Amino acid sequence: MPAYKLTVAYDGTDYCGFQVQPNGPTIQGILMKAAIDLFGEDVTVTGASRTDSGVHSRGQVVLLKAIKAIELRKVPLALNMRLPEDIVIVEAEEVAETWHPRYQTHIKTYSYRIYNGSFHYPQDKRDSYHFYRHLDVQKMCEAGQLLVGTHDFESYSSARKNVEDTVRTIYQLEITENNGMIQVDVTGNGFLYNMVRIIVGTLMEVGYDRRSLEDIRESIAHRDRSLTGKTAPAKGLTLVEIKYGAYGE
Amino acid sequence: MPAYKLTVAYDGTDYCGFQVQPNGPTIQGILMKAAIDLFGEDVTVTGASRTDSGVHSRGQVVLLKAIKAIELRKVPLALNMRLPEDIVIVEAEEVAETWHPRYQTHIKTYSYRIYNGSFHYPQDKRDSYHFYRHLDVQKMCEAGQLLVGTHDFESYSSARKNVEDTVRTIYQLEITENNGMIQVDVTGNGFLYNMVRIIVGTLMEVGYDRRSLEDIRESIAHRDRSLTGKTAPAKGLTLVEIKYGAYGE
Repeated sequence: MPAYKLTVAYDGTDYCGFQVQPNGPTIQGILMKAAIDLFGEDVTVTGASRTDSGVHSRGQVVLLKAIKAIELRKVPLALNMRLPEDIVIVEAEEVAETWHPRYQTHIKTYSYRIYNGSFHYPQDKRDSYHFYRHLDVQKMCEAGQLLVGTHDFESYSSARKNVEDTVRTIYQLEITENNGMIQVDVTGNGFLYNMVRIIVGTLMEVGYDRRSLEDIRESIAHRDRSLTGKTAPAKGLTLVEIKYGAYGE
Repeated sequence: MPAYKLTVAYDGTDYCGFQVQPNGPTIQGILMKAAIDLFGEDVTVTGASRTDSGVHSRGQVVLLKAIKAIELRKVPLALNMRLPEDIVIVEAEEVAETWHPRYQTHIKTYSYRIYNGSFHYPQDKRDSYHFYRHLDVQKMCEAGQLLVGTHDFESYSSARKNVEDTVRTIYQLEITENNGMIQVDVTGNGFLYNMVRIIVGTLMEVGYDRRSLEDIRESIAHRDRSLTGKTAPAKGLTLVEIKYGAYGE
Protein backbone atom coordinates (compact mmCIF):
# COMPACT_ATOMS: atom_id res chain seq x y z
CA MET A 1 0.00 0.00 0.00
CA PRO A 2 1.74 3.22 -1.13
CA ALA A 3 2.13 5.92 1.52
CA TYR A 4 3.07 9.51 0.73
CA LYS A 5 4.20 12.14 3.19
CA LEU A 6 2.97 15.45 1.82
CA THR A 7 3.95 18.92 2.99
CA VAL A 8 0.89 21.10 2.59
CA ALA A 9 0.75 24.90 2.58
CA TYR A 10 -2.53 26.74 2.88
CA ASP A 11 -4.18 30.04 3.50
CA GLY A 12 -6.64 29.02 6.19
CA THR A 13 -8.85 32.12 5.93
CA ASP A 14 -11.71 30.48 4.07
CA TYR A 15 -11.66 27.12 5.86
CA CYS A 16 -13.17 25.71 9.02
CA GLY A 17 -9.77 24.37 10.08
CA PHE A 18 -7.90 21.25 9.06
CA GLN A 19 -10.08 18.46 10.34
CA VAL A 20 -13.23 17.36 8.52
CA GLN A 21 -16.39 18.56 10.22
CA PRO A 22 -19.97 19.24 9.19
CA ASN A 23 -20.06 23.06 9.39
CA GLY A 24 -18.08 23.97 6.30
CA PRO A 25 -15.13 23.27 4.05
CA THR A 26 -11.95 21.95 5.68
CA ILE A 27 -8.41 21.41 4.44
CA GLN A 28 -8.66 17.68 5.10
CA GLY A 29 -11.97 17.48 3.27
CA ILE A 30 -10.64 19.26 0.19
CA LEU A 31 -7.48 17.10 0.20
CA MET A 32 -9.64 13.95 0.45
CA LYS A 33 -11.68 15.03 -2.55
CA ALA A 34 -8.58 15.71 -4.65
CA ALA A 35 -6.97 12.43 -3.56
CA ILE A 36 -10.09 10.38 -4.34
CA ASP A 37 -10.28 12.01 -7.74
CA LEU A 38 -6.66 11.04 -8.42
CA PHE A 39 -6.26 7.66 -6.67
CA GLY A 40 -9.79 6.29 -6.57
CA GLU A 41 -12.02 5.63 -3.57
CA ASP A 42 -9.73 3.94 -1.08
CA VAL A 43 -7.56 6.70 0.34
CA THR A 44 -6.87 7.98 3.83
CA VAL A 45 -5.64 11.50 4.59
CA THR A 46 -4.14 12.04 8.05
CA GLY A 47 -2.76 15.37 9.26
CA ALA A 48 0.04 15.93 11.76
CA SER A 49 -1.70 18.94 13.26
CA ARG A 50 -5.38 19.81 13.56
CA THR A 51 -4.98 23.49 12.82
CA ASP A 52 -7.97 25.62 13.82
CA SER A 53 -10.26 27.63 11.59
CA GLY A 54 -8.35 30.56 10.12
CA VAL A 55 -4.88 29.22 10.96
CA HIS A 56 -2.44 29.03 8.04
CA SER A 57 0.28 26.57 7.09
CA ARG A 58 3.55 26.55 5.28
CA GLY A 59 4.52 23.16 6.65
CA GLN A 60 1.57 20.96 7.61
CA VAL A 61 2.43 17.30 7.12
CA VAL A 62 -0.18 14.95 5.74
CA LEU A 63 0.02 11.22 5.26
CA LEU A 64 -1.80 10.03 2.17
CA LYS A 65 -2.39 6.31 1.79
CA ALA A 66 -3.86 4.84 -1.35
CA ILE A 67 -4.21 1.47 -3.02
CA LYS A 68 -3.08 2.59 -6.45
CA ALA A 69 0.57 3.69 -6.74
CA ILE A 70 1.44 6.85 -8.67
CA GLU A 71 4.96 7.94 -9.53
CA LEU A 72 6.19 10.16 -6.69
CA ARG A 73 7.20 13.06 -8.91
CA LYS A 74 3.67 13.26 -10.32
CA VAL A 75 1.80 13.16 -7.01
CA PRO A 76 2.13 16.87 -6.03
CA LEU A 77 1.60 18.04 -9.62
CA ALA A 78 -1.54 15.95 -10.08
CA LEU A 79 -2.96 16.88 -6.67
CA ASN A 80 -2.24 20.60 -7.09
CA MET A 81 -4.16 20.53 -10.38
CA ARG A 82 -7.16 19.31 -8.39
CA LEU A 83 -6.76 21.72 -5.47
CA PRO A 84 -7.96 25.32 -5.12
CA GLU A 85 -5.44 28.21 -5.24
CA ASP A 86 -5.24 28.45 -1.45
CA ILE A 87 -4.09 24.87 -0.78
CA VAL A 88 -0.81 23.66 -2.29
CA ILE A 89 1.25 20.47 -1.91
CA VAL A 90 4.78 21.88 -1.72
CA GLU A 91 6.67 18.63 -1.17
CA ALA A 92 6.10 14.89 -1.36
CA GLU A 93 8.08 11.82 -0.39
CA GLU A 94 7.34 8.14 -0.05
CA VAL A 95 7.30 6.69 3.45
CA ALA A 96 6.90 3.26 5.01
CA GLU A 97 3.35 2.02 5.42
CA THR A 98 3.80 2.09 9.19
CA TRP A 99 4.83 5.75 9.30
CA HIS A 100 2.38 8.09 11.07
CA PRO A 101 2.53 11.91 11.13
CA ARG A 102 1.49 12.19 14.79
CA TYR A 103 3.04 9.14 16.44
CA GLN A 104 6.55 9.68 15.10
CA THR A 105 8.86 11.88 17.19
CA HIS A 106 8.79 15.40 15.82
CA ILE A 107 9.22 19.06 16.66
CA LYS A 108 6.95 21.81 15.38
CA THR A 109 7.53 25.46 14.64
CA TYR A 110 4.76 28.02 14.61
CA SER A 111 4.96 31.72 13.72
CA TYR A 112 2.60 34.38 14.92
CA ARG A 113 2.59 37.82 13.29
CA ILE A 114 1.25 40.97 14.97
CA TYR A 115 1.16 44.24 13.06
CA ASN A 116 1.69 46.93 15.67
CA GLY A 117 0.87 50.19 13.95
CA SER A 118 -1.99 52.53 13.15
CA PHE A 119 -3.16 51.09 9.85
CA HIS A 120 -2.94 47.51 8.64
CA TYR A 121 -1.33 47.08 5.21
CA PRO A 122 -3.63 45.24 2.76
CA GLN A 123 -0.86 42.73 2.00
CA ASP A 124 -0.71 41.69 5.65
CA LYS A 125 -4.41 41.49 6.50
CA ARG A 126 -4.90 37.80 5.80
CA ASP A 127 -2.04 36.46 7.88
CA SER A 128 -1.32 38.91 10.66
CA TYR A 129 -3.24 40.35 13.59
CA HIS A 130 -3.58 44.12 13.78
CA PHE A 131 -2.95 45.58 17.23
CA TYR A 132 -2.95 49.39 17.64
CA ARG A 133 -1.63 49.80 21.17
CA HIS A 134 2.15 50.04 21.43
CA LEU A 135 3.89 46.80 22.36
CA ASP A 136 7.30 46.78 24.02
CA VAL A 137 9.08 44.03 22.09
CA GLN A 138 12.01 43.94 24.50
CA LYS A 139 9.70 43.14 27.40
CA MET A 140 7.91 40.51 25.33
CA CYS A 141 11.28 38.87 24.60
CA GLU A 142 12.20 38.75 28.28
CA ALA A 143 8.85 37.21 29.16
CA GLY A 144 9.15 34.76 26.27
CA GLN A 145 12.48 33.47 27.56
CA LEU A 146 10.79 32.39 30.80
CA LEU A 147 8.65 29.97 28.79
CA VAL A 148 11.57 28.25 27.10
CA GLY A 149 12.33 24.83 28.55
CA THR A 150 10.23 21.99 29.92
CA HIS A 151 7.20 23.18 31.89
CA ASP A 152 3.66 22.25 32.72
CA PHE A 153 1.75 24.43 30.26
CA GLU A 154 -1.73 23.73 31.65
CA SER A 155 -2.21 27.50 32.17
CA TYR A 156 -1.57 27.95 28.45
CA SER A 157 -4.24 25.56 27.27
CA SER A 158 -7.92 25.91 26.47
CA ALA A 159 -10.12 23.53 28.44
CA ARG A 160 -10.23 20.11 26.79
CA LYS A 161 -11.10 16.76 28.23
CA ASN A 162 -8.70 13.81 28.37
CA VAL A 163 -5.42 15.68 28.32
CA GLU A 164 -3.57 14.15 31.25
CA ASP A 165 -0.08 15.23 30.41
CA THR A 166 0.30 18.97 29.99
CA VAL A 167 4.10 19.05 30.24
CA ARG A 168 5.73 20.24 27.04
CA THR A 169 9.16 21.47 25.99
CA ILE A 170 9.72 24.74 24.16
CA TYR A 171 13.15 24.65 22.55
CA GLN A 172 13.13 28.14 21.16
CA LEU A 173 10.99 31.26 21.35
CA GLU A 174 12.18 34.20 19.28
CA ILE A 175 10.53 37.57 18.83
CA THR A 176 11.64 39.93 16.08
CA GLU A 177 10.29 43.23 14.81
CA ASN A 178 10.55 44.77 11.36
CA ASN A 179 8.74 47.98 10.39
CA GLY A 180 6.01 47.40 12.95
CA MET A 181 5.56 43.71 12.15
CA ILE A 182 6.27 41.67 15.27
CA GLN A 183 6.91 38.00 14.67
CA VAL A 184 6.88 35.34 17.38
CA ASP A 185 8.52 32.04 16.35
CA VAL A 186 8.04 29.11 18.72
CA THR A 187 9.57 25.66 18.38
CA GLY A 188 8.56 22.82 20.64
CA ASN A 189 8.02 19.08 20.95
CA GLY A 190 4.25 19.48 20.94
CA PHE A 191 1.64 22.08 21.76
CA LEU A 192 -1.54 21.91 23.79
CA TYR A 193 -4.84 23.15 22.39
CA ASN A 194 -4.53 26.92 21.65
CA MET A 195 -1.15 26.96 23.42
CA VAL A 196 0.69 29.16 20.89
CA ARG A 197 -2.20 31.62 20.67
CA ILE A 198 -2.42 31.87 24.47
CA ILE A 199 1.35 32.33 24.72
CA VAL A 200 1.16 35.16 22.18
CA GLY A 201 -1.87 36.76 23.85
CA THR A 202 -0.08 36.62 27.20
CA LEU A 203 3.20 38.04 25.87
CA MET A 204 1.24 40.86 24.24
CA GLU A 205 -0.19 41.76 27.66
CA VAL A 206 3.37 41.93 28.96
CA GLY A 207 4.12 44.16 25.96
CA TYR A 208 1.58 46.76 27.05
CA ASP A 209 2.25 46.42 30.78
CA ARG A 210 -0.85 44.55 31.73
CA ARG A 211 1.28 41.68 33.02
CA SER A 212 4.71 41.45 34.61
CA LEU A 213 7.55 38.95 34.35
CA GLU A 214 6.50 37.78 37.79
CA ASP A 215 3.04 36.97 36.39
CA ILE A 216 4.68 34.80 33.74
CA ARG A 217 6.68 32.93 36.40
CA GLU A 218 3.43 32.38 38.32
CA SER A 219 1.66 31.12 35.21
CA ILE A 220 4.08 28.22 34.79
CA ALA A 221 4.38 27.51 38.50
CA HIS A 222 0.62 26.90 38.68
CA ARG A 223 -1.91 25.16 36.47
CA ASP A 224 -4.52 27.84 36.03
CA ARG A 225 -5.86 29.31 32.78
CA SER A 226 -6.87 32.50 34.62
CA LEU A 227 -3.17 33.32 35.10
CA THR A 228 -2.60 33.80 31.38
CA GLY A 229 -3.86 36.26 28.76
CA LYS A 230 -6.41 36.25 25.98
CA THR A 231 -6.14 33.76 23.16
CA ALA A 232 -4.71 35.69 20.21
CA PRO A 233 -6.85 35.49 17.03
CA ALA A 234 -6.30 32.58 14.63
CA LYS A 235 -5.47 34.67 11.56
CA GLY A 236 -2.00 35.63 12.83
CA LEU A 237 -0.89 32.02 13.28
CA THR A 238 1.01 29.90 10.76
CA LEU A 239 2.26 26.33 11.20
CA VAL A 240 5.70 26.72 9.68
CA GLU A 241 7.48 23.42 9.94
CA ILE A 242 7.31 19.91 11.34
CA LYS A 243 10.62 18.11 11.65
CA TYR A 244 10.71 14.35 12.12
CA GLY A 245 13.38 12.04 13.44
CA ALA A 246 14.33 8.94 11.48
CA TYR A 247 11.21 7.44 9.91
CA GLY A 248 9.85 4.39 11.59
CA GLU A 249 11.68 4.96 14.87
CA MET B 1 -6.80 75.24 0.37
CA PRO B 2 -5.87 72.24 2.55
CA ALA B 3 -3.37 69.79 1.06
CA TYR B 4 -2.69 66.34 2.50
CA LYS B 5 0.21 64.09 1.65
CA LEU B 6 -1.09 60.54 1.98
CA THR B 7 0.92 57.35 2.01
CA VAL B 8 -1.20 54.71 0.33
CA ALA B 9 -0.72 50.93 0.47
CA TYR B 10 -2.57 48.65 -1.89
CA ASP B 11 -2.81 45.18 -3.28
CA GLY B 12 -2.87 46.00 -6.98
CA THR B 13 -4.13 42.57 -8.12
CA ASP B 14 -7.69 43.64 -8.84
CA TYR B 15 -6.95 47.10 -10.30
CA CYS B 16 -6.05 48.45 -13.72
CA GLY B 17 -3.11 50.35 -12.22
CA PHE B 18 -2.96 53.63 -10.38
CA GLN B 19 -4.06 56.15 -12.96
CA VAL B 20 -7.72 56.64 -13.90
CA GLN B 21 -8.60 55.07 -17.23
CA PRO B 22 -11.78 53.79 -18.88
CA ASN B 23 -11.13 50.02 -18.87
CA GLY B 24 -11.69 49.26 -15.22
CA PRO B 25 -11.24 50.24 -11.59
CA THR B 26 -8.07 52.13 -10.68
CA ILE B 27 -6.50 53.12 -7.40
CA GLN B 28 -6.78 56.82 -8.25
CA GLY B 29 -10.44 56.40 -9.20
CA ILE B 30 -11.32 54.63 -5.97
CA LEU B 31 -9.39 57.24 -3.93
CA MET B 32 -11.24 60.04 -5.76
CA LYS B 33 -14.59 58.47 -4.95
CA ALA B 34 -13.72 58.15 -1.26
CA ALA B 35 -12.33 61.70 -1.14
CA ILE B 36 -15.39 63.21 -2.83
CA ASP B 37 -17.63 61.36 -0.41
CA LEU B 38 -15.65 62.81 2.50
CA PHE B 39 -14.68 66.31 1.32
CA GLY B 40 -17.33 67.14 -1.27
CA GLU B 41 -16.95 67.64 -5.02
CA ASP B 42 -13.86 69.81 -5.34
CA VAL B 43 -10.94 67.49 -4.71
CA THR B 44 -7.86 66.55 -6.68
CA VAL B 45 -5.92 63.32 -6.18
CA THR B 46 -2.40 63.23 -7.61
CA GLY B 47 -0.09 60.22 -7.34
CA ALA B 48 3.70 60.25 -7.19
CA SER B 49 3.96 57.12 -9.29
CA ARG B 50 1.70 55.71 -11.98
CA THR B 51 2.03 52.10 -10.97
CA ASP B 52 0.91 49.61 -13.62
CA SER B 53 -1.94 47.16 -13.46
CA GLY B 54 -1.14 44.44 -10.92
CA VAL B 55 1.70 46.34 -9.22
CA HIS B 56 1.40 46.73 -5.44
CA SER B 57 2.30 49.49 -3.02
CA ARG B 58 3.36 49.91 0.54
CA GLY B 59 4.49 53.48 0.01
CA GLN B 60 2.72 55.24 -2.85
CA VAL B 61 2.44 58.96 -2.12
CA VAL B 62 -0.73 60.80 -3.06
CA LEU B 63 -1.49 64.49 -2.80
CA LEU B 64 -5.08 65.18 -1.87
CA LYS B 65 -6.32 68.74 -2.22
CA ALA B 66 -9.75 69.78 -1.05
CA ILE B 67 -11.68 72.95 -0.26
CA LYS B 68 -13.04 71.81 3.05
CA ALA B 69 -10.49 71.24 5.84
CA ILE B 70 -10.71 68.14 8.01
CA GLU B 71 -8.64 67.53 11.11
CA LEU B 72 -5.48 65.70 10.03
CA ARG B 73 -5.84 62.88 12.52
CA LYS B 74 -9.27 62.06 11.13
CA VAL B 75 -8.36 62.08 7.45
CA PRO B 76 -6.88 58.55 7.17
CA LEU B 77 -9.54 57.10 9.48
CA ALA B 78 -12.42 58.64 7.53
CA LEU B 79 -10.93 57.71 4.15
CA ASN B 80 -10.14 54.14 5.17
CA MET B 81 -13.77 53.70 6.22
CA ARG B 82 -14.72 54.58 2.65
CA LEU B 83 -12.07 52.44 0.94
CA PRO B 84 -12.14 48.73 0.08
CA GLU B 85 -9.99 46.27 2.07
CA ASP B 86 -7.19 46.28 -0.51
CA ILE B 87 -6.47 50.04 -0.42
CA VAL B 88 -5.36 51.63 2.86
CA ILE B 89 -4.13 55.10 3.80
CA VAL B 90 -1.27 54.25 6.18
CA GLU B 91 -0.03 57.77 6.89
CA ALA B 92 -1.15 61.37 6.41
CA GLU B 93 0.46 64.75 6.88
CA GLU B 94 -0.40 68.29 5.92
CA VAL B 95 1.77 69.94 3.26
CA ALA B 96 2.03 73.35 1.66
CA GLU B 97 -0.41 74.06 -1.15
CA THR B 98 2.52 74.29 -3.56
CA TRP B 99 3.88 70.87 -2.69
CA HIS B 100 3.72 68.30 -5.52
CA PRO B 101 4.45 64.56 -5.25
CA ARG B 102 6.26 64.35 -8.59
CA TYR B 103 8.04 67.70 -8.89
CA GLN B 104 9.69 67.61 -5.49
CA THR B 105 13.09 65.90 -5.26
CA HIS B 106 12.63 62.34 -4.13
CA ILE B 107 14.06 58.85 -4.23
CA LYS B 108 12.02 55.71 -4.71
CA THR B 109 12.48 52.17 -3.55
CA TYR B 110 10.87 49.22 -5.30
CA SER B 111 10.97 45.56 -4.28
CA TYR B 112 10.52 42.63 -6.62
CA ARG B 113 9.91 39.14 -5.24
CA ILE B 114 10.58 35.93 -7.18
CA TYR B 115 9.71 32.58 -5.66
CA ASN B 116 12.29 30.17 -7.04
CA GLY B 117 11.03 26.71 -6.14
CA SER B 118 8.81 23.92 -7.40
CA PHE B 119 5.49 24.97 -5.89
CA HIS B 120 4.27 28.46 -5.07
CA TYR B 121 3.00 28.91 -1.50
CA PRO B 122 -0.61 30.23 -1.44
CA GLN B 123 0.44 33.08 0.87
CA ASP B 124 2.91 34.36 -1.74
CA LYS B 125 0.83 34.04 -4.90
CA ARG B 126 -0.55 37.56 -4.96
CA ASP B 127 2.72 39.43 -4.59
CA SER B 128 5.51 37.30 -5.96
CA TYR B 129 6.36 35.78 -9.30
CA HIS B 130 6.82 32.03 -9.45
CA PHE B 131 9.86 30.89 -11.44
CA TYR B 132 10.71 27.16 -11.50
CA ARG B 133 14.14 27.17 -13.13
CA HIS B 134 17.04 27.53 -10.70
CA LEU B 135 18.43 31.05 -10.37
CA ASP B 136 22.00 31.68 -9.23
CA VAL B 137 21.52 34.54 -6.77
CA GLN B 138 25.25 35.21 -6.51
CA LYS B 139 25.47 35.84 -10.26
CA MET B 140 22.38 38.04 -10.14
CA CYS B 141 24.01 40.12 -7.38
CA GLU B 142 27.18 40.61 -9.42
CA ALA B 143 25.19 41.69 -12.46
CA GLY B 144 23.03 43.97 -10.33
CA GLN B 145 26.08 45.81 -9.02
CA LEU B 146 26.94 46.84 -12.61
CA LEU B 147 23.68 48.78 -12.76
CA VAL B 148 24.32 50.81 -9.61
CA GLY B 149 25.33 54.40 -10.35
CA THR B 150 24.36 56.95 -12.98
CA HIS B 151 23.73 55.43 -16.41
CA ASP B 152 21.65 55.88 -19.50
CA PHE B 153 18.92 53.28 -18.89
CA GLU B 154 17.31 53.54 -22.34
CA SER B 155 17.90 49.77 -22.81
CA TYR B 156 15.86 49.21 -19.65
CA SER B 157 12.79 51.09 -20.79
CA SER B 158 9.68 50.13 -22.73
CA ALA B 159 9.08 52.26 -25.81
CA ARG B 160 7.38 55.53 -24.91
CA LYS B 161 7.22 58.81 -26.73
CA ASN B 162 8.58 62.06 -25.32
CA VAL B 163 11.17 60.72 -22.95
CA GLU B 164 14.27 62.67 -23.87
CA ASP B 165 16.32 62.10 -20.80
CA THR B 166 16.87 58.44 -20.02
CA VAL B 167 19.75 58.97 -17.59
CA ARG B 168 18.91 57.82 -14.08
CA THR B 169 20.81 57.05 -10.88
CA ILE B 170 20.45 53.81 -8.98
CA TYR B 171 21.77 54.31 -5.46
CA GLN B 172 21.35 50.78 -4.28
CA LEU B 173 20.41 47.38 -5.69
CA GLU B 174 20.29 44.53 -3.21
CA ILE B 175 19.33 40.93 -3.80
CA THR B 176 18.59 38.61 -0.91
CA GLU B 177 17.26 35.06 -0.72
CA ASN B 178 15.31 33.39 2.03
CA ASN B 179 13.84 29.87 1.70
CA GLY B 180 13.58 30.18 -2.07
CA MET B 181 12.12 33.70 -2.03
CA ILE B 182 14.47 36.01 -3.91
CA GLN B 183 13.95 39.70 -3.26
CA VAL B 184 15.41 42.48 -5.40
CA ASP B 185 15.37 45.92 -3.72
CA VAL B 186 16.20 48.90 -5.94
CA THR B 187 16.53 52.52 -4.86
CA GLY B 188 16.94 55.33 -7.36
CA ASN B 189 16.17 58.92 -8.17
CA GLY B 190 13.56 57.97 -10.74
CA PHE B 191 12.65 55.06 -12.95
CA LEU B 192 11.75 54.87 -16.64
CA TYR B 193 8.63 53.07 -17.78
CA ASN B 194 8.93 49.35 -16.82
CA MET B 195 12.55 49.92 -15.78
CA VAL B 196 12.45 47.88 -12.56
CA ARG B 197 10.64 45.01 -14.24
CA ILE B 198 13.13 44.95 -17.13
CA ILE B 199 16.06 45.09 -14.68
CA VAL B 200 14.61 42.10 -12.82
CA GLY B 201 13.85 40.18 -16.01
CA THR B 202 17.40 40.78 -17.21
CA LEU B 203 19.01 39.81 -13.91
CA MET B 204 16.94 36.62 -13.91
CA GLU B 205 18.40 35.73 -17.32
CA VAL B 206 21.85 36.18 -15.80
CA GLY B 207 20.66 33.92 -12.98
CA TYR B 208 20.00 31.02 -15.34
CA ASP B 209 23.00 31.69 -17.61
CA ARG B 210 21.17 33.10 -20.56
CA ARG B 211 23.12 36.36 -20.20
CA SER B 212 26.62 37.19 -18.98
CA LEU B 213 28.07 40.08 -16.99
CA GLU B 214 29.52 41.28 -20.28
CA ASP B 215 25.97 41.48 -21.70
CA ILE B 216 25.00 43.71 -18.79
CA ARG B 217 27.96 46.03 -19.45
CA GLU B 218 26.88 46.19 -23.09
CA SER B 219 23.30 46.99 -22.15
CA ILE B 220 24.27 50.17 -20.35
CA ALA B 221 26.94 51.15 -22.87
CA HIS B 222 24.29 51.19 -25.61
CA ARG B 223 20.71 52.39 -25.87
CA ASP B 224 18.95 49.32 -27.17
CA ARG B 225 16.00 47.46 -25.68
CA SER B 226 17.03 44.29 -27.51
CA LEU B 227 20.11 44.08 -25.26
CA THR B 228 18.03 43.46 -22.14
CA GLY B 229 15.73 40.67 -20.98
CA LYS B 230 12.00 40.11 -20.71
CA THR B 231 9.88 42.46 -18.63
CA ALA B 232 9.16 40.56 -15.39
CA PRO B 233 5.43 40.25 -14.58
CA ALA B 234 3.73 43.06 -12.65
CA LYS B 235 2.52 40.92 -9.73
CA GLY B 236 6.00 40.58 -8.19
CA LEU B 237 6.54 44.33 -7.98
CA THR B 238 5.85 46.56 -4.97
CA LEU B 239 6.49 50.29 -4.65
CA VAL B 240 7.95 50.32 -1.15
CA GLU B 241 8.90 53.87 -0.30
CA ILE B 242 9.20 57.40 -1.66
CA LYS B 243 11.50 59.67 0.32
CA TYR B 244 11.31 63.44 -0.18
CA GLY B 245 13.76 66.19 0.58
CA ALA B 246 12.61 69.26 2.52
CA TYR B 247 9.11 70.15 1.35
CA GLY B 248 8.93 73.06 -1.02
CA GLU B 249 12.57 72.89 -2.03
